[in-house]
Amino acid sequence: MKSDIEIAREATMRPVIDIASDLGVDRAQVIPYGHYKAKIELDYVNSLQDRPNGKLVLVTAMSPTPAGEGKTTVAIGLADAMNQLGKKASVCLREPSLGPCFGLKGGAAGGGMSQVVPMEDINLHFTGDMHAIGAAHNLLAAMIDNYIHWSNELRLDLRRVTWRRVVDINDRQLRQIVTGIGGPGNGFPMEGGYDITVASEVMAIFCLAQNIEDLQRRLGSIVIGYTRDREPVTAAQLQASGAMTALLRDALAPNLVQTLENNPAFIHGGPFANIAHGCNSVIATQTALKLSDYVVTEAGFGADLGAEKFFNIKCRKSGLTPDAAVIVVTVRALKMHGGVARDALTEENLPALEAGLENLGRHIRNCGQYGIPLTVAINHFADDTEAEIAAIKTYTQSRGLEAHLCTHHRDGGEGAIDLATQVADLADSSQAQFRTLYDDHLSLWEKARTVARNVYGADDLDADQKVREQFDQFEAEGYGHFPVCMAKTQYSFSTDPRLVGAPGNHRVKVRELALAAGAEFLVVVCGDIMRMPGLPRSPAANNIYVNAQGQIEGLF
Amino acid sequence: MKSDIEIAREATMRPVIDIASDLGVDRAQVIPYGHYKAKIELDYVNSLQDRPNGKLVLVTAMSPTPAGEGKTTVAIGLADAMNQLGKKASVCLREPSLGPCFGLKGGAAGGGMSQVVPMEDINLHFTGDMHAIGAAHNLLAAMIDNYIHWSNELRLDLRRVTWRRVVDINDRQLRQIVTGIGGPGNGFPMEGGYDITVASEVMAIFCLAQNIEDLQRRLGSIVIGYTRDREPVTAAQLQASGAMTALLRDALAPNLVQTLENNPAFIHGGPFANIAHGCNSVIATQTALKLSDYVVTEAGFGADLGAEKFFNIKCRKSGLTPDAAVIVVTVRALKMHGGVARDALTEENLPALEAGLENLGRHIRNCGQYGIPLTVAINHFADDTEAEIAAIKTYTQSRGLEAHLCTHHRDGGEGAIDLATQVADLADSSQAQFRTLYDDHLSLWEKARTVARNVYGADDLDADQKVREQFDQFEAEGYGHFPVCMAKTQYSFSTDPRLVGAPGNHRVKVRELALAAGAEFLVVVCGDIMRMPGLPRSPAANNIYVNAQGQIEGLF
Repeated sequence: MKSDIEIAREATMRPVIDIASDLGVDRAQVIPYGHYKAKIELDYVNSLQDRPNGKLVLVTAMSPTPAGEGKTTVAIGLADAMNQLGKKASVCLREPSLGPCFGLKGGAAGGGMSQVVPMEDINLHFTGDMHAIGAAHNLLAAMIDNYIHWSNELRLDLRRVTWRRVVDINDRQLRQIVTGIGGPGNGFPMEGGYDITVASEVMAIFCLAQNIEDLQRRLGSIVIGYTRDREPVTAAQLQASGAMTALLRDALAPNLVQTLENNPAFIHGGPFANIAHGCNSVIATQTALKLSDYVVTEAGFGADLGAEKFFNIKCRKSGLTPDAAVIVVTVRALKMHGGVARDALTEENLPALEAGLENLGRHIRNCGQYGIPLTVAINHFADDTEAEIAAIKTYTQSRGLEAHLCTHHRDGGEGAIDLATQVADLADSSQAQFRTLYDDHLSLWEKARTVARNVYGADDLDADQKVREQFDQFEAEGYGHFPVCMAKTQYSFSTDPRLVGAPGNHRVKVRELALAAGAEFLVVVCGDIMRMPGLPRSPAANNIYVNAQGQIEGLF
Repeated sequence: MKSDIEIAREATMRPVIDIASDLGVDRAQVIPYGHYKAKIELDYVNSLQDRPNGKLVLVTAMSPTPAGEGKTTVAIGLADAMNQLGKKASVCLREPSLGPCFGLKGGAAGGGMSQVVPMEDINLHFTGDMHAIGAAHNLLAAMIDNYIHWSNELRLDLRRVTWRRVVDINDRQLRQIVTGIGGPGNGFPMEGGYDITVASEVMAIFCLAQNIEDLQRRLGSIVIGYTRDREPVTAAQLQASGAMTALLRDALAPNLVQTLENNPAFIHGGPFANIAHGCNSVIATQTALKLSDYVVTEAGFGADLGAEKFFNIKCRKSGLTPDAAVIVVTVRALKMHGGVARDALTEENLPALEAGLENLGRHIRNCGQYGIPLTVAINHFADDTEAEIAAIKTYTQSRGLEAHLCTHHRDGGEGAIDLATQVADLADSSQAQFRTLYDDHLSLWEKARTVARNVYGADDLDADQKVREQFDQFEAEGYGHFPVCMAKTQYSFSTDPRLVGAPGNHRVKVRELALAAGAEFLVVVCGDIMRMPGLPRSPAANNIYVNAQGQIEGLF
């Protein structure tokens, strides 16, 4: 089997202006970045507002193994398959971070025969969006500390500056730092730290903004810390949001590339799926919906996290209404949720698999709450046995759903034709009656409690008195209408990653809250949340280099 | 008078593929970044090697005021004027840093009618080179600390890791920090700090590399710190240089934009002029020389710093041979060097100006040492009087040089026709017999001493015993053949910024040394060197925003 980068390198790409042209976008509206990447002019994007939308399909997944179950490849394979069926379909994905590329997990441009290309570009700097977001974030940090250095007329509490810094690299050494040492010329000594760029609130804002004005307004609403009198201080008060917007202006235009089968792929924005909402940008999704009959998109982690936030945050805030959803499962993840150890997942184990189907079952029930038709995609691996596949199909039939064996990783779109046929039918059926899980007017606590009970299957939500008071405080400060952005482990419905399957009799404890006043959600942290990963003992970066032909080797 | 951004916005730009086409570059060799910025394919650049070079003209300056004397606008105006004279001329400039854009000094894309466009793009993210350099630099930092965290088999001394981190923002708060606190999961507590990206050795390497292989080799040679046994450790030993090169591969292709008069401008690389060599990339200069009959370039700060390093580092290491040089002077800088206070520089003051001409005189003598023909450009300001201009011309005549009044800031290329006519004559005269100031085989100490005596006019070079031993140590480690990269104040020939004019009877004290083993020079620090500026009390960023038309306001 060829490596992803070998397959990508052999791809026959069409000029991106031709991809755009097939979408009806004139070359004058295309901002090229090389010959195979482009942005679509924001003015043009805004001019599309009155066009009807295509159908929106979400690809989500069961609770994943650490390797991920292949939402990205399914989304790409599904879009390719729909195009093979003569449907005009685009795929909308998140932009990769450099962190995993140089760390453990590798790139995020799909894999096998279901990739987006040019793979190296997408995985490395792409069109520079990630760098622009990092620069805007860090400019605000510098302006905060500079304000404190020179005057601090607002009496910002140096101990309560909540705005950290970001870098798009896995760098554990920066998680917790002390800045401003070395004397008065270097500012005041303060505690601080770095998150990875995708965890930045600027990234979340970027992905939820409707347009430049909305972006500038939201950036201004960011709460960067508190005064000695515990009054919140915003980026607008420090006159930082305009310059931040200037840094983000070009980046906000959505990116267009293509799949290996030369179908349009919008790859724009990539917020973390724990402390942010884990979906690509609203602007890209809306643009794709105006230019395509079907848009396939995905959301981070399992459906308890990604789909929940896609529906309750992204769709709620943008007015997008999905028409169908696909739940991706793998035999290995089902066996893991049936209690099999990670080193035994390639052996057939029907009892374990059947036990693990409980996990899928709860995701099916959960996704059903949003009023949209569902189907299941089995992302096929070489070790899967026929009996295992059959067991999944039997189970989903008992739940009233079809399950489609998908071999897109090996076969490209052809491997997802069955899935595509049904997805198109479901999306066209107008069955969808999309509804969010909770209303805006519910209290912040009740919103989090609803997710814990109705999605995680928890008996209830708990929090210490101090955290409960914070909920009340945010209500009092006028943020009560925000949705909640739950941050918890992706490996379990519960907050304990070891509780596989569909655990009952568990309670969800809120450990802390983080206001994202610009993104307009309240992050409810339940468990250990990684805002800055570390590199592994042998990082992928050790094996990456440029060969004598000028090609990048070792990227995967 | 219109602001720079207003003038830039009203520019009639030609598509960059047409600018390239005029240079004889086919559109297939052009990598567009939007319609008005491009990179030239590296393979194509390499294919030009056997073509003859055009003439190379350096624009340098007398010792500047804090506002700078206009080398960039003179270089642009001169190239435009040469084109008006029917000569095929390109200009090669450094890429701006975001730091000054958001700080005090504003952008670095020229000014008035001598600008390079698109101005906002060039000043903000441009083609992403600065971000790529920052990412490569910080990846190495993360890999060093990750190596220490997991194994540290080499026994790196945590107190002697010399590789810092970078960010392209003025952020004094990060000059000196403590990282790795919060427990074993966050690495070892260590001292560290941030420099601005242009001060990165990666930037210096990027600007001196001949091609990708040379880049990868040089990155591998970076010394990142020392073991407990005081042995140097390189980036190659940590297997980091390949991934760093992958991050820089696309950036290494030179950038092409245009002047307001639609002439080609190569803007690529921008190292600091104190702890690095302050010149745009060798690759861009070489490419421009293959594609143009005349190439005008500039080097940071006054001729004691920028020109000295251009000749003794950039030309020495790349084999470039300059054909002529222009020394830029201003009436206000001459008066400052005659002792006038900064708030009285707009008043006529002939005695002060005449006293200040000593400063120019020493720069003329110094530049004469390199064996190339010289001329002087008077960058005209509205307050200059005729008597002041006349005094400058009389003086330069007495030194055997012409001085040309240049009004390019107001008039574009037309304002530099006289200058251009003489520069073309000088460059065509084949008078130049370029020689560097010192030979490779001289000891590091003697190289620094030669610059101090022959350029700064110092009586001698001093250093404490500890620093002298470091000189010896670097000789012993095999770096004795490197040139020296002097880091001192740009405001005086001496190390005291208050000693204006052409001070005599001074000695230059070396405070510390910094090895740049990848850039292949030894930084000799004489005085306070700023590796990370701070933002001013009212940073320019406070007034930057995006207006309702989506245009950036407040950038200057």
